Amino acid sequence: MTGFFKESEPVMMNTVTLNEENVNSFHHAISSVVVTAQCFGLLPVLGITGPNATSVRFRWCSFRTVFSIFILLGTGLNMCFSIVLMRSGVSFKESDGMAFFGTVTITYMLFLQLARQWPTLISEWENLEISQKHYGYPRRLCLKIKIMTVIVLTGALVEHALSKASGIMTAVACTDNITDVFRYYFTRTGTYDQMFAVMEYSFTTAILTLITNFIATFTWNFTDLFIILMSLALTERFRLFNQNLDSVRGKLLTESFWSQIREEYNSLSHLTRTLDSCISKIVLVSFASNLYFICRQLLSSLSPLHGLVNTVYFCWSFGFVLFRAVTLSVYASRIYDESLLPKRVLYDVPPESYKVEVSRFLNQIVTDTVALSGMNFFYITRTLLLTLAGTIVTYEIVLVQLNSISLVGSNTSTNVTEKCYD
Amino acid sequence: MTGFFKESEPVMMNTVTLNEENVNSFHHAISSVVVTAQCFGLLPVLGITGPNATSVRFRWCSFRTVFSIFILLGTGLNMCFSIVLMRSGVSFKESDGMAFFGTVTITYMLFLQLARQWPTLISEWENLEISQKHYGYPRRLCLKIKIMTVIVLTGALVEHALSKASGIMTAVACTDNITDVFRYYFTRTGTYDQMFAVMEYSFTTAILTLITNFIATFTWNFTDLFIILMSLALTERFRLFNQNLDSVRGKLLTESFWSQIREEYNSLSHLTRTLDSCISKIVLVSFASNLYFICRQLLSSLSPLHGLVNTVYFCWSFGFVLFRAVTLSVYASRIYDESLLPKRVLYDVPPESYKVEVSRFLNQIVTDTVALSGMNFFYITRTLLLTLAGTIVTYEIVLVQLNSISLVGSNTSTNVTEKCYD
Amino acid sequence: MTGFFKESEPVMMNTVTLNEENVNSFHHAISSVVVTAQCFGLLPVLGITGPNATSVRFRWCSFRTVFSIFILLGTGLNMCFSIVLMRSGVSFKESDGMAFFGTVTITYMLFLQLARQWPTLISEWENLEISQKHYGYPRRLCLKIKIMTVIVLTGALVEHALSKASGIMTAVACTDNITDVFRYYFTRTGTYDQMFAVMEYSFTTAILTLITNFIATFTWNFTDLFIILMSLALTERFRLFNQNLDSVRGKLLTESFWSQIREEYNSLSHLTRTLDSCISKIVLVSFASNLYFICRQLLSSLSPLHGLVNTVYFCWSFGFVLFRAVTLSVYASRIYDESLLPKRVLYDVPPESYKVEVSRFLNQIVTDTVALSGMNFFYITRTLLLTLAGTIVTYEIVLVQLNSISLVGSNTSTNVTEKCYD
Amino acid sequence: MTGFFKESEPVMMNTVTLNEENVNSFHHAISSVVVTAQCFGLLPVLGITGPNATSVRFRWCSFRTVFSIFILLGTGLNMCFSIVLMRSGVSFKESDGMAFFGTVTITYMLFLQLARQWPTLISEWENLEISQKHYGYPRRLCLKIKIMTVIVLTGALVEHALSKASGIMTAVACTDNITDVFRYYFTRTGTYDQMFAVMEYSFTTAILTLITNFIATFTWNFTDLFIILMSLALTERFRLFNQNLDSVRGKLLTESFWSQIREEYNSLSHLTRTLDSCISKIVLVSFASNLYFICRQLLSSLSPLHGLVNTVYFCWSFGFVLFRAVTLSVYASRIYDESLLPKRVLYDVPPESYKVEVSRFLNQIVTDTVALSGMNFFYITRTLLLTLAGTIVTYEIVLVQLNSISLVGSNTSTNVTEKCYD
Repeated sequence: MTGFFKESEPVMMNTVTLNEENVNSFHHAISSVVVTAQCFGLLPVLGITGPNATSVRFRWCSFRTVFSIFILLGTGLNMCFSIVLMRSGVSFKESDGMAFFGTVTITYMLFLQLARQWPTLISEWENLEISQKHYGYPRRLCLKIKIMTVIVLTGALVEHALSKASGIMTAVACTDNITDVFRYYFTRTGTYDQMFAVMEYSFTTAILTLITNFIATFTWNFTDLFIILMSLALTERFRLFNQNLDSVRGKLLTESFWSQIREEYNSLSHLTRTLDSCISKIVLVSFASNLYFICRQLLSSLSPLHGLVNTVYFCWSFGFVLFRAVTLSVYASRIYDESLLPKRVLYDVPPESYKVEVSRFLNQIVTDTVALSGMNFFYITRTLLLTLAGTIVTYEIVLVQLNSISLVGSNTSTNVTEKCYD
Repeated sequence: MTGFFKESEPVMMNTVTLNEENVNSFHHAISSVVVTAQCFGLLPVLGITGPNATSVRFRWCSFRTVFSIFILLGTGLNMCFSIVLMRSGVSFKESDGMAFFGTVTITYMLFLQLARQWPTLISEWENLEISQKHYGYPRRLCLKIKIMTVIVLTGALVEHALSKASGIMTAVACTDNITDVFRYYFTRTGTYDQMFAVMEYSFTTAILTLITNFIATFTWNFTDLFIILMSLALTERFRLFNQNLDSVRGKLLTESFWSQIREEYNSLSHLTRTLDSCISKIVLVSFASNLYFICRQLLSSLSPLHGLVNTVYFCWSFGFVLFRAVTLSVYASRIYDESLLPKRVLYDVPPESYKVEVSRFLNQIVTDTVALSGMNFFYITRTLLLTLAGTIVTYEIVLVQLNSISLVGSNTSTNVTEKCYD
Repeated sequence: MTGFFKESEPVMMNTVTLNEENVNSFHHAISSVVVTAQCFGLLPVLGITGPNATSVRFRWCSFRTVFSIFILLGTGLNMCFSIVLMRSGVSFKESDGMAFFGTVTITYMLFLQLARQWPTLISEWENLEISQKHYGYPRRLCLKIKIMTVIVLTGALVEHALSKASGIMTAVACTDNITDVFRYYFTRTGTYDQMFAVMEYSFTTAILTLITNFIATFTWNFTDLFIILMSLALTERFRLFNQNLDSVRGKLLTESFWSQIREEYNSLSHLTRTLDSCISKIVLVSFASNLYFICRQLLSSLSPLHGLVNTVYFCWSFGFVLFRAVTLSVYASRIYDESLLPKRVLYDVPPESYKVEVSRFLNQIVTDTVALSGMNFFYITRTLLLTLAGTIVTYEIVLVQLNSISLVGSNTSTNVTEKCYD
Repeated sequence: MTGFFKESEPVMMNTVTLNEENVNSFHHAISSVVVTAQCFGLLPVLGITGPNATSVRFRWCSFRTVFSIFILLGTGLNMCFSIVLMRSGVSFKESDGMAFFGTVTITYMLFLQLARQWPTLISEWENLEISQKHYGYPRRLCLKIKIMTVIVLTGALVEHALSKASGIMTAVACTDNITDVFRYYFTRTGTYDQMFAVMEYSFTTAILTLITNFIATFTWNFTDLFIILMSLALTERFRLFNQNLDSVRGKLLTESFWSQIREEYNSLSHLTRTLDSCISKIVLVSFASNLYFICRQLLSSLSPLHGLVNTVYFCWSFGFVLFRAVTLSVYASRIYDESLLPKRVLYDVPPESYKVEVSRFLNQIVTDTVALSGMNFFYITRTLLLTLAGTIVTYEIVLVQLNSISLVGSNTSTNVTEKCYD
């Protein structure tokens, strides 16, 4: 259908329209976010700021890729340290370190894999934008993406700062002079244990640890943000399509018109599938990690909190992880919601216009599931949110149970962790 | 289809038929209920007793709207007081206050929002009634609405009275002279704590508190009643349609007849969607609040009851909240049940009459979900009731668990709450 | 279609064929079971042994109906006694009495209601048998029904006998002379408590109690048996249809043939719906009661068993209630399984024969749910069994939890119940 | 369709093509695995190494069948011994023996039953391979089967060896001289308890026990492997079909082409159903047994581990049972995934080619569930894995609960099992 366009014209058309409106084209709207991600070694593709999607490409031997692999190795090392720490006896509370660095390490691998598929994805997206040029580009897509990015990253920064503050407060309460505070903070408060369980404490290692932690926290938050943005951009394409379709509701139309509309819908459904095949692993990791950390935070909420900074940190941290998880689910499920909307218009087609192509279009909408998925284990729809809430409660029961059992078993060691380490 | 009718004729037709049968039209049947609600500041629309739906309108600067916002602020204030009370240390039992006033405050907001959509909804409903005039109006709709209103509101009144009686009995048991009884009742028995935690006790504040509490209780009960009544009225429209369809079961009919029937069904399905978009947030709040209060009551049932009045109050309160939740679910799920019934008639269409429009009608029934929903997170169907029962049991486990943990942690303070406050 | 037959011919045809094969017609096959049930006051219809379904009728002022209402009142009285007993303080263990007699009382009401619908049901069934006479009658239906009846009722009798034996063993262990054994057995072992909590012990009341208990036990077991037999008979009709359909697999057939087949399927689906509307309440009560008693037995299995007779009784009782519940689910779900089978044949229809009626038939099979249901809350399918197993486990958690809590609270009273009452 | 081929030609064609490529035909690819299984008495069919499927047959009075029944009786005896042991008082931990030998005994019965259906299954498979000869045979099917077999059986062997090592370590720690070690190992370490609870210890019985245990362990592992291999082979056939279909995506094609494609898909779906009817009982046993052993291992993980060998054994054992269960689910669910893929191609059919047969094909894909099942209680799809994970967690709660209760009840006996038996 769009075979001719694909080969020769798009490049020219694209450069022509660059000055006009395609600031809202997906390639341009997402570029600043991708650049930010690349500062932390994620999604190492070249030509991200180029005029159009054809300039985007992946190379193993580029600086960005090497940088990405370097950080991947760093987080992997942290994960190994965490495992070592777990083996040496301390239970449960330290499994957070492994879960955190494990998630981050896997995320780096998946983004590296995504970087290889990115050129294909972005050029399929651009081709769709060109072939559906009569709908124009989504209004203010670029702005929406920027606002969402700022909200999520600011929230993450606040959480990170509070985490540091909370740790230092604990250190201050347990030490006498100022130099000991930092030593105590780095080696005893739990956040960087995995490093100093293996390495000696020094200024250099302390700084290194801080940086590693900052990068890992960014990545952990960026994963959710990335899925939200991809969902947002795709939903906007579906909305353009649906608004256009809504304007012909109830009108008498030829079969060839419906055939064209159906093919456009088919392209959108193709794009969703391509996107899903690219990011479905990231989605699975993101949901699993959110599930783990929400359960963990809920469990922490059962034990009493000490001090104001600690309380504020806990509330913000829990609120923010909930906000991220719910926002992610709601945005991703909108793709599914929008993909079903054309159904309503098709029910209103007058009997005279109801031909094979309309019936076929309806059939496709009803029988195909157009949505993001977690490796096809689940589709992100509105009902998933309810199911997740139920699952969290069920898992919570287990964790409360396990926790009370391990508390009874290791009663003395718990008392020690509550106090300062001497 | 009904474009011409919409513009000019309906007003005239309506005034003509007013004296005959449209006491059972939705606009007239629901008016007395809406008037009752407006006494408590809910649904502040004008022209509710007018001859037809076109007289209904919403104005921000009307007395009713201002009254509504005034009460909204009052309940909001109560909610804030409850939160303040929670912060000051007392756990769990006082979260009821926040849940109760939180629900009521949100309900006021949602009814204010609904008031703005009400004119559109009621005029779509009236247009459907006029375009399907050959079916007549639902028999005794007005009577059914009144009976249901009386049952639910009487039940709520009895519960409210028992709640007061139970509180006063506790106060009497703990005080010596009669003036202290009321002071004790208002400041110590838990129902109005949030007020007197902030304000001084005086006759004026006591009366104000009583009124606020009465209004909040009404609203809490009215939410469920309102959804029941809307479901009832819509179900009756579907029943009229289905009765008519049932009378042509197995007959030979033209395609244009089926086309018309399908369009009528489509209008009903449109109306359901409009209604759902108006009240789905209220439905979600209502289900969440019922879920919370049923779990809470079940949890209370584990601790022993003191005195006859207390026992009767608890039984009635628990029975009534269960009755309301089940009635709500059953009535709302009937819309879905009725929307599926035409399927049966279509299976019986003789082969000679089975044309495109019949097949299309069947397809629409099967592929579309015509039901009320809780913000699209769930559809209210019969199976939802079972799922809810299962969820209540699962949540109960968590609450029992949490309760037994917090009991162990705050053993002494619990003993105090059991006795009188001196 | 079969309008002419319905009015005049069926009676004559039926009497003609009586001597040949219609011992396997539903009316004749089920008659002996219904007669057995009537000895215990269930399903009080007249003319059950008549030559055909037209002789069956229900009368309020017949001896059978009066007898049925008499027993209904008796079991109702027992239920009231059980509630009285519960109120007087003893917890949980005695709720079994209320659950048991409550189930039986409701069952009597539902069977009385069913008796009124029975003539309609049985004549619709007979009409279907006559209109699908070319398929013949199900082979050995009568024999299968008799075997199933004997198995279930024998199992129930053994359980009842073991229950008596277990009770008498306990009584013997706690008393000295023979006359006291019976007095002790009736007044203290828990089975007949609800009677003697209200009445004085005497020989007459003891005998009365025995009979009441026997009848109630029969009814409790008969409910499940009845649903199994109805499912069995209906499944056999579907099988006849499917066998016939299977014999034309892959053949070239006219559209009018498919139209006739589809109408026959439609009649079967109609019959299923009629049957469901008659017995779906009984199904719901049966599933709820089975769920309760399985959970109760599982909970009992956590406390240690005393003595051989007690152990055998417990094992048999638990095994039998499981056997009944599983058999019921499997038999009832077969209706659904069989109703889907024609789908397979329709996929094999050669392209030349694939016309509108075939497509319509396939569509009907796929979009309609032909199965027994529990008041439409759930359909009995194979997956239901798995869901039930999961639900039982979940409920079990709650019960274990509640039980351990109530054990801690009433530690002394538990010790008393373990020993003999003096 | 392929009626003529079935009767006469296949045998000749098969022998002709033997030298060329049908090393990857199902009959040849699976033969070495079946031969391995027959060494342990599973699947006793004759002619498994013959040139084609027609040489495969089952005889009751062959050596292989007798051998199979002999082992079946042996494992049955072990199961009986385990039950005897359970009765004699020791609780829970010994139920493993019964679960293990019960599973193995039922597996032998089911494989005997499968052996009778094997000739029909394998000849239907070969007929499909011949009728779809234009697709060729799956590439490297034979190799893939061999690799999977080696991986699973090696893993099982390592687990078996670790189990022995772990037992002997315990025995060494509890005895003084070398001869006592073996006696202690066989009679006290729990693995062979059921034998020596009935028989006297001697060199002969010890060897016999070792062999029985080895065979049982092989069978337990082979069940999962077998389902994996069958799924793998069937998935490859679907893949061939899908690859071929993918190559005509978007092309203009005649209706007769689509009719042929649909019939080929129908044959594949027929084969899946035949395979499912043969192995669905084995699937159910396999899933139930995996569920049991995963829960059991998780429960064990709550109690502390003693010694390195024990720790390594536990980790490997748990990891391996998880690996097997996940691999099984993933491979089996691929059949379902592949069976849905043609849908995508059908959406891309150009309007000119979209005729009745295409619509019918799409309809069949959407309405039919082509997947392996556990006796129709559940279909193995991707979502099942998630459900299973949830179920394991839920069951875990119950087991933790039960365990903590039984620990409290039998506190002294637990201490004894932890130490050596004297």
